[in-house]
Amino acid sequence: METNNLIGHLIDGQDVYGTGRSQYVYNPATGAAEKRVLLADRQTVEAAIASAQAAFPAWRNTPALKRARVMSNLKQLLEQHADEICQLITAEHGKVLSDAMGELQRGIENIEYASYAPELLKGEHSKNAGPSIDSWSEMQPLGVVAGITPFNFPAMVPLWMWPLAIACGNTFVLKPSERDPSSTLLIARLALEAGLPPGVLNVVNGDKEAVDALLLDTRVQAVSFVGSTPIAQYIYATGTAQGKRMQALGGAKNHAVVMPDADIPQAVSALMGAAYGSCGERCMAIPLLVAVGDATAEALITGLRTEIAKMRVGPGDDARSDMGPLVTRQHYDKVRAYVANGVAEGATLLVDGREIELPKGYEDGYYLGPCLFDHVTPNMRIYQEEIFGPVLGVVRVSSLQAAMDLIDAHEYGNGTCIFTRDGEAARYFSDGIQVGMVGVNVPLPVPVAYHSFGGWKRSLFGDLGAYGPDGVRFYTRRKTITQRWPSAGLREAAVFSFPSNQ
Amino acid sequence: METNNLIGHLIDGQDVYGTGRSQYVYNPATGAAEKRVLLADRQTVEAAIASAQAAFPAWRNTPALKRARVMSNLKQLLEQHADEICQLITAEHGKVLSDAMGELQRGIENIEYASYAPELLKGEHSKNAGPSIDSWSEMQPLGVVAGITPFNFPAMVPLWMWPLAIACGNTFVLKPSERDPSSTLLIARLALEAGLPPGVLNVVNGDKEAVDALLLDTRVQAVSFVGSTPIAQYIYATGTAQGKRMQALGGAKNHAVVMPDADIPQAVSALMGAAYGSCGERCMAIPLLVAVGDATAEALITGLRTEIAKMRVGPGDDARSDMGPLVTRQHYDKVRAYVANGVAEGATLLVDGREIELPKGYEDGYYLGPCLFDHVTPNMRIYQEEIFGPVLGVVRVSSLQAAMDLIDAHEYGNGTCIFTRDGEAARYFSDGIQVGMVGVNVPLPVPVAYHSFGGWKRSLFGDLGAYGPDGVRFYTRRKTITQRWPSAGLREAAVFSFPSNQ
Amino acid sequence: METNNLIGHLIDGQDVYGTGRSQYVYNPATGAAEKRVLLADRQTVEAAIASAQAAFPAWRNTPALKRARVMSNLKQLLEQHADEICQLITAEHGKVLSDAMGELQRGIENIEYASYAPELLKGEHSKNAGPSIDSWSEMQPLGVVAGITPFNFPAMVPLWMWPLAIACGNTFVLKPSERDPSSTLLIARLALEAGLPPGVLNVVNGDKEAVDALLLDTRVQAVSFVGSTPIAQYIYATGTAQGKRMQALGGAKNHAVVMPDADIPQAVSALMGAAYGSCGERCMAIPLLVAVGDATAEALITGLRTEIAKMRVGPGDDARSDMGPLVTRQHYDKVRAYVANGVAEGATLLVDGREIELPKGYEDGYYLGPCLFDHVTPNMRIYQEEIFGPVLGVVRVSSLQAAMDLIDAHEYGNGTCIFTRDGEAARYFSDGIQVGMVGVNVPLPVPVAYHSFGGWKRSLFGDLGAYGPDGVRFYTRRKTITQRWPSAGLREAAVFSFPSNQ
Amino acid sequence: METNNLIGHLIDGQDVYGTGRSQYVYNPATGAAEKRVLLADRQTVEAAIASAQAAFPAWRNTPALKRARVMSNLKQLLEQHADEICQLITAEHGKVLSDAMGELQRGIENIEYASYAPELLKGEHSKNAGPSIDSWSEMQPLGVVAGITPFNFPAMVPLWMWPLAIACGNTFVLKPSERDPSSTLLIARLALEAGLPPGVLNVVNGDKEAVDALLLDTRVQAVSFVGSTPIAQYIYATGTAQGKRMQALGGAKNHAVVMPDADIPQAVSALMGAAYGSCGERCMAIPLLVAVGDATAEALITGLRTEIAKMRVGPGDDARSDMGPLVTRQHYDKVRAYVANGVAEGATLLVDGREIELPKGYEDGYYLGPCLFDHVTPNMRIYQEEIFGPVLGVVRVSSLQAAMDLIDAHEYGNGTCIFTRDGEAARYFSDGIQVGMVGVNVPLPVPVAYHSFGGWKRSLFGDLGAYGPDGVRFYTRRKTITQRWPSAGLREAAVFSFPSNQ
Repeated sequence: METNNLIGHLIDGQDVYGTGRSQYVYNPATGAAEKRVLLADRQTVEAAIASAQAAFPAWRNTPALKRARVMSNLKQLLEQHADEICQLITAEHGKVLSDAMGELQRGIENIEYASYAPELLKGEHSKNAGPSIDSWSEMQPLGVVAGITPFNFPAMVPLWMWPLAIACGNTFVLKPSERDPSSTLLIARLALEAGLPPGVLNVVNGDKEAVDALLLDTRVQAVSFVGSTPIAQYIYATGTAQGKRMQALGGAKNHAVVMPDADIPQAVSALMGAAYGSCGERCMAIPLLVAVGDATAEALITGLRTEIAKMRVGPGDDARSDMGPLVTRQHYDKVRAYVANGVAEGATLLVDGREIELPKGYEDGYYLGPCLFDHVTPNMRIYQEEIFGPVLGVVRVSSLQAAMDLIDAHEYGNGTCIFTRDGEAARYFSDGIQVGMVGVNVPLPVPVAYHSFGGWKRSLFGDLGAYGPDGVRFYTRRKTITQRWPSAGLREAAVFSFPSNQ
Repeated sequence: METNNLIGHLIDGQDVYGTGRSQYVYNPATGAAEKRVLLADRQTVEAAIASAQAAFPAWRNTPALKRARVMSNLKQLLEQHADEICQLITAEHGKVLSDAMGELQRGIENIEYASYAPELLKGEHSKNAGPSIDSWSEMQPLGVVAGITPFNFPAMVPLWMWPLAIACGNTFVLKPSERDPSSTLLIARLALEAGLPPGVLNVVNGDKEAVDALLLDTRVQAVSFVGSTPIAQYIYATGTAQGKRMQALGGAKNHAVVMPDADIPQAVSALMGAAYGSCGERCMAIPLLVAVGDATAEALITGLRTEIAKMRVGPGDDARSDMGPLVTRQHYDKVRAYVANGVAEGATLLVDGREIELPKGYEDGYYLGPCLFDHVTPNMRIYQEEIFGPVLGVVRVSSLQAAMDLIDAHEYGNGTCIFTRDGEAARYFSDGIQVGMVGVNVPLPVPVAYHSFGGWKRSLFGDLGAYGPDGVRFYTRRKTITQRWPSAGLREAAVFSFPSNQ
Repeated sequence: METNNLIGHLIDGQDVYGTGRSQYVYNPATGAAEKRVLLADRQTVEAAIASAQAAFPAWRNTPALKRARVMSNLKQLLEQHADEICQLITAEHGKVLSDAMGELQRGIENIEYASYAPELLKGEHSKNAGPSIDSWSEMQPLGVVAGITPFNFPAMVPLWMWPLAIACGNTFVLKPSERDPSSTLLIARLALEAGLPPGVLNVVNGDKEAVDALLLDTRVQAVSFVGSTPIAQYIYATGTAQGKRMQALGGAKNHAVVMPDADIPQAVSALMGAAYGSCGERCMAIPLLVAVGDATAEALITGLRTEIAKMRVGPGDDARSDMGPLVTRQHYDKVRAYVANGVAEGATLLVDGREIELPKGYEDGYYLGPCLFDHVTPNMRIYQEEIFGPVLGVVRVSSLQAAMDLIDAHEYGNGTCIFTRDGEAARYFSDGIQVGMVGVNVPLPVPVAYHSFGGWKRSLFGDLGAYGPDGVRFYTRRKTITQRWPSAGLREAAVFSFPSNQ
Repeated sequence: METNNLIGHLIDGQDVYGTGRSQYVYNPATGAAEKRVLLADRQTVEAAIASAQAAFPAWRNTPALKRARVMSNLKQLLEQHADEICQLITAEHGKVLSDAMGELQRGIENIEYASYAPELLKGEHSKNAGPSIDSWSEMQPLGVVAGITPFNFPAMVPLWMWPLAIACGNTFVLKPSERDPSSTLLIARLALEAGLPPGVLNVVNGDKEAVDALLLDTRVQAVSFVGSTPIAQYIYATGTAQGKRMQALGGAKNHAVVMPDADIPQAVSALMGAAYGSCGERCMAIPLLVAVGDATAEALITGLRTEIAKMRVGPGDDARSDMGPLVTRQHYDKVRAYVANGVAEGATLLVDGREIELPKGYEDGYYLGPCLFDHVTPNMRIYQEEIFGPVLGVVRVSSLQAAMDLIDAHEYGNGTCIFTRDGEAARYFSDGIQVGMVGVNVPLPVPVAYHSFGGWKRSLFGDLGAYGPDGVRFYTRRKTITQRWPSAGLREAAVFSFPSNQ
């Protein structure tokens, strides 16, 4: 596969290397630069697009059931290669292996959904829309579509996109994150092994040059993007100006509201995972805990401190680690700076993860322990901005309405959750809150694969969410056919004769 | 598995044998009685029902995704064991191996559809059905359901039923045909291997005693049956009188209409398979060819005679055979009698399959060659009755309307097809014909697994067809929930306090 | 309209009278026999069926949008004639005018749903089900269908049936209750005025002779019935034995569970209407209140006694009346006997509605005041049987599980509800309870018109519920078409020539 | 209504006039400037937005059934005021009254679809998405949305938009064409009369200043636009850059393909209406006729010439007129220039509509007679550009494939149609053609209101089409809720006590 630790591209069913630009891929657990990844230039991206374009006509005409079966095969292969994939994730991203397995599992669920293609692609048929006139819709594939994905879920986020796009009959060019591309690439190779014809799925590694090549090429019909909000907005505006179908998922700052009647031990347990899991590098992480009432806040903080004290930070491939390192040195520095800034702005730092003891040999890894702030307020940067690190802030309010006003005033509207036993409070919250994904006693309300993922406000640019029913709609174009046949003269002729040209 | 060629039951995850009644299972290719099958008494059936009843609560609460995954696993296992399964089919039913593989493949498609359960079981949710009132439907499983299946598709027809029933959360008792139960039983064992908990799927072999035990047991919530019309009607009436949900699929006499503008070579090729495939022992077979115009009739007959002359009849496990034997001696005698009767009634026997040379060692097999009648008329028994053998009759009419009047006057309404190039003729036919499954230039319009199978008139008793969307509806019970929460007093209280009992 | 207070039939768009049997229609408020209704003999019913049969072909081919528009027109006409309709209901059934208006309103909602026919009748279309093979389903009407409806909702229950059946393209014969047919008949006449062609909707008044004529006529494809369980079972078994599509809704004994954390004043208010509204003559009424804990029971009883003391019983057309009379003298005697029986069996009769003062001129009306029992137990007849009168019994249990066990042990499974603030309790209850329609803080969880009505257990015989999506499925027959066109030879011919017969 | 022939705005339920800019509205039949329309400035538009914003919370919480009923009421009012509306259309647009009635009827169908809102807004509910976890989607309204509509269908195109948007719970600001705003405004007033609360629907007249105010205001969540492609692209790019949900429908150049086996008289009749109806000022008009084979071309031309000779051009309010004037003097000049250009480029002008005799008093009207070109070729401007006038060009090709290649090479992909009897040809064409709306023997395949309108390529910018299912998706935002309740401790407590705060 990789030659001398060089990570290349997968184009037209072949591993492709070249002599162009490249950059290091680091192991965050050690800080070592173990591999290099090639950065595609425009020509390389165009070769991938050309391959996808060439593969489209035959793939589009392949019955959905057959396309779906490749997805079933791929599911099996991923289950067989799960350990290998997760080790690659951990080695390049840093998350602990159980987290890696979790994201792979979620990705597999998206593949399962894609395997329902024959059901998902049914159009609507109207008999006698008018006298002897029938009309129906066909959800046809778009052609070549592209995906641009972030570092934090190198297996899962690409699997939100291309399995469904391909099951719908499109062909695909994927540009994964250049920080941790190996697991993504391995999965793509397994998809070919599962039966995808060459060119149906292509992977190009790269940076902005590759991204712009995808955005500007007229053969690319649609692009799905996941990343930060400023980039998402740029991608969306650039692509739509080109007349492409676009969806761009951006940042988040998800609030968990805890009501006085909540099951506090359950809430604490749930929030520990939601705040610190995968080092907080998740767009559905919970970095803000909104406690309704001081008693609620105190009870939660007591519980959290107890749990934090038990956490072990260390390399992701050590089964004893609860939390691994951050993804890069640069990001590590940025998160530390946020912690310092929180202190400076007046929040109370209850637990400081910056002074953490590391196992021998891991001193150069990008480790930051769990941090817990109390008395966070909306004017602080640690309240307003997406930190993407293991930093949880407690905000105190006196009513559910106050909590909701806070959330609705925030720039982002990705996910949120409420902890309560009260049916009325839960319904009032989930009905009114200006957020796309809502959990009731569920801390990370990532919709299951057969529903759709989508934030509101500046967390998503585009009309349609990722995967699930919205994904099907995004990756298909509606064609509506209205049909009437000529008068029955031919049929009614005594015995209508063989046409002269037979 | 089988002990001394004795075929038992599969109850609560165990092979169960006993000392009760049994009967021979013959190999139709040789006429040899190679195995014995146990015939369950009431107690045995009740043990199976009890096992299913016990397994229900946990299975019902298993998320649909997990239930669906067992189906995906089973698909893999069936693909791995396909040869073994098909050899069992051929050894007990007689059909050629390629036919056996065809039916297994169709059955696997039903398993694939069952694996879409998370999508298929979605209910409808209405926000604000009234002010602050929400309402939604849940499609809940029924409990213990049963299936009673015929000899002609020992793999496929059971797979129309239990995978979907089980994926919907039910537990199942299957009574396959006692003529060829081994493939059915093997598939059920593989389903356990694939992950079905014991008791979720049980198989009992038997005859009327077993059937009546299933029909009369109050724990059985629903029964799906496929067989002949008189039995279907008995089963349906008996079960509905017990308050059970019932569907009973019966006989057929499918007409193929060929218009003068048809692609005759294509029609001939299609009709050969439809008339003689699997020895005509299919409820979707085409035993009647309605030619519009004498010229059409002559062209078809010329083509059919040519093709029939090339057919080889022989044992199903011989790759050179195009058609195997009929299923039993008794059925063989019955079909021969129909041929004689057709001659007696005045139809023209163009090809007589009764005088057929057999390979050595197969003289006692139940072989009948392809038979072709011309000038069949509606008053003849060979027109009216389901022969279930390799007997094709040509009926001549002078217009499409006359063809349709014939079809609509027939007792059965399972399937039909038309061969034409003309959009208007095809639409007029498919719109008006009183038949549930219609092919346009497709001779056996068996709906794909994600649509539903169902005849009209005396071909189906019950509201809902088999498999596909109708199958989901049949195997689930609607529950509608209407929900409003009490006044917001609790939520609006300044900081609502911890309930006293915490 | 009626001639000399004689109520006839509506057949083929005409009022039809005759010289056959008839019986009195009473005004329950006064006991006066004010009208006579004709009872159709078999010939009359067959004339109605023949009219429906004749109207079917043209109506079936009328585009769904046009059929739907008749429903929209009818909605307007019913709104314009609402007072007249409600006066007829009250004059023959006895319920107060506001209740009559309520049922008419619900019926209008079913008409609105029927007006969505173009959306509801969409079939599923699969492109490339195989290579160049398309397949789709059409939901075709059945032909002539019939409805047999009860006295308690003379406007609403017929409107559950025929508007949707007719919007789906069927033609209809309705046999309403002979106790209060006038409002039903008026609505049918308005439907003709709204644009239904003659014969599409026919109404025959009658008794068992008419019912049997409908059940046995082979032209009737399906029957919807609402009534008591013994009759429902008879109707269902008779019709299914005839091969008809059947649905028969029977009796009920709905339990309301009140948890200790419920909003008691809201629950009391809700239960007053649910127990005594329309004199308890509703299959969704609440005759049993299951209090979890004695404190809950006491609080509820205190509230109920207070509210009952304020109730006024009197003629339905007096705006001061909260509750009118029972429907007939015979039924009045039967309900009184139940009250006596409850006392005899040991229940505590807290409020006795038998001794009630009546306004002058109404002494012969069938009035019974609200009755309230405490300490009702499952062994009592007033627990087990459907009383259909203003009798509410309190059952005391110590846990939700005990309440659910009671409900699940009961013969009926129509509706139920729970009063609680607790999300977990509500979800546990609605998930597990063996009842088809569940309310959470909603006392009468009659599904809205765009969901479906259906009890479980002996409350419904048949696979499919009434109205809503199930109604659409009930009133249509699936036809699945699989289509492939012949080789492209014709199209690819250089310029394919005019067929010789043009 | 209008004061002194001054056409104002409708804001917050009130007619609003002002002192700002205005322009003439002409009667194209006479060329007379009969009215003036006010052109809103930014402040006026913002007042309308503010009104819509204020009306949103209550409207959003109004049950869908009640919102739908306003649509039903509006349908009645439009039917009652149809003549008045159509006279306004004809007086400002010029089309003949029967055309005006046709567009109004189409618009009413969209209102009917909007009245299905309770059905259309159902979300998907998944029970046990995980153990005891439920998940469902709610399709919530967006808030304030806007519509910007063209002159050619002043009644219909606005009715594609706001009824559905409003039925989904949004509030609306409409900016109709300033050339013919009166019918649009009258319909909006009737909607208020039908029951829309003030502010739910606002109409502002104006030009680019108003458009830009709508595009730039952050309170406007989404904009639907119909107009020419350059403006559509500008609108789409501007709106998406603002983070708004956008759909912008642009131009078209629809080709009708006629095969040699077509029913030529039927095709001629259909094409006459498609080419010249409403003076060709329709985005679904047929300006190009692609004849397969010269014989086909000759037969069509013979037929068309005969029909054209019978056509009468005159004022739209004269019942004898088949075709009225073009919309403006400027547009008239432009279309004439196209005709001249076609001649200059070498096409054969078979019928020249430029020299037309006009009735007395209409000499200053913008009348152009039907024009027919033969031998049009793809390099000509009359082939490439949207003329929007009564100009039909015949293109000759030798095969269906050649016809399809032409169509696929064109910039636009709105609608197309094929005339043939051949099922295979029709399916090949409709499957492969790169056009969003396809007719088979249907010249103007505008999807019915319960399907969706949407072109491909540069005919539509955005993911989702107009009206129908796509419209519902466009006007709603998905919210996905994932819900689990805390442990059953509370419920299982012996008798759980009243919370302390009650």
